[in-house]
Amino acid sequence: MEIMKREIKDIEKRKFPKKISLKPIGIIHTRFKSLKGIPIQSSLSESNGTIEIFPEYQAGLKDLDGFSHMYCLYFFDMVKLPVPLISKPFLDNESRGVFAIRTPFRPNPLGLSILEVQGIKENLIHVKNVDILDNTPILDIKPYISEFDSIESYKIGWLKGKIEKRIS
Amino acid sequence: MEIMKREIKDIEKRKFPKKISLKPIGIIHTRFKSLKGIPIQSSLSESNGTIEIFPEYQAGLKDLDGFSHMYCLYFFDMVKLPVPLISKPFLDNESRGVFAIRTPFRPNPLGLSILEVQGIKENLIHVKNVDILDNTPILDIKPYISEFDSIESYKIGWLKGKIEKRIS
Repeated sequence: MEIMKREIKDIEKRKFPKKISLKPIGIIHTRFKSLKGIPIQSSLSESNGTIEIFPEYQAGLKDLDGFSHMYCLYFFDMVKLPVPLISKPFLDNESRGVFAIRTPFRPNPLGLSILEVQGIKENLIHVKNVDILDNTPILDIKPYISEFDSIESYKIGWLKGKIEKRIS
Repeated sequence: MEIMKREIKDIEKRKFPKKISLKPIGIIHTRFKSLKGIPIQSSLSESNGTIEIFPEYQAGLKDLDGFSHMYCLYFFDMVKLPVPLISKPFLDNESRGVFAIRTPFRPNPLGLSILEVQGIKENLIHVKNVDILDNTPILDIKPYISEFDSIESYKIGWLKGKIEKRIS
C-alpha cells in the first residue's frame, strides 16, 4: 500500500533525545561464526551472505535490485558498553581515538558496510563483500551511489601506508 | 586513559535484540533551520557546520583531524514512525521502496553523510558539505577512507540519468 503523507514532528516542540530506540529490520546470515577471521573491511571481502529482511519490511525492498551496491547499517550486538575512547586499531601499533578508527567497539556500536547486491528474492537479499558476523541485527539499507558516495579522501591520517593487512 | 581490554559478550548466550538503544554522542549546528532547502546529499552541499561532541566523548576525537573526510551517522529525530515502505523520492516521479531511496523517512531513521573535516578544536569538529538539519543528534563518526569506501556502482537503478536536481 502506498502512503504518500509524510509525518513530521512539530519543529516548535522538538526536544533533543537522550535516548534513541531502534528495531532491527532484519538479520544477516554469513559464514563468520566467531569474531576471529572476519575481513576488516567489506571492500576486502569476497564472501557471500544473505540478509533476511523481516516480512513486515519486505515491501521496502522494491527497486533495490536495480543498484549494484548498497550500504548496510547494522548493530554490533556483541559489544559490551562502555568502550574505551582510545584504543589500538587492527592496522596500527599506536592507540587512536575511537572516532578515527573503524573498530566495532564504539560508544554506539553501529556498523557500516558497502555490499554488492547479487540478487533479491522475496525478503532475501543475496550480497557479496560480507565482513559481518553471522546473525547480526540489520538496522537499515540504503542504495550506494558513486556519484554521491565516492569521494577522494586526500588525507587518511594514521592509515597512510598501512592498508595491506587484510584479515582480522 | 587507555583501556585495552575489549569487552565482548559471551557468544553462547547471544540473543537477538528486539530493541536497540543508542545515546547521542553530540549535536550538529548548521544553517538549516527547517526541512526546506537542505541539500539532498552531502556531496552536493558546500555548507559548513559544527559538530559539538559531548565532553564525555571528546577523547575519542584524537587523530580524526588526520583525515580529510569522515562519515557522520545521525538520527532524523523529526521523523514520525511508522513510515511508508514505498514512496516517491525527491529525484523521481515514481514510487520506490524505502531501502532503494535515501529519504529520511525510514523504519530506522538513520542518516549518513560524508563530511569534509576542516578542523577540530577541543570538542568541536568543523565540517563542510553539510546536508543536515540544525540540532540533529549525532550517533557516530568514522573516518572515510577512499581505499575502502570509494566503489564504482555500475548500476544505480532508478537514479540513472536523474542526478541533476540539487536542492530539496
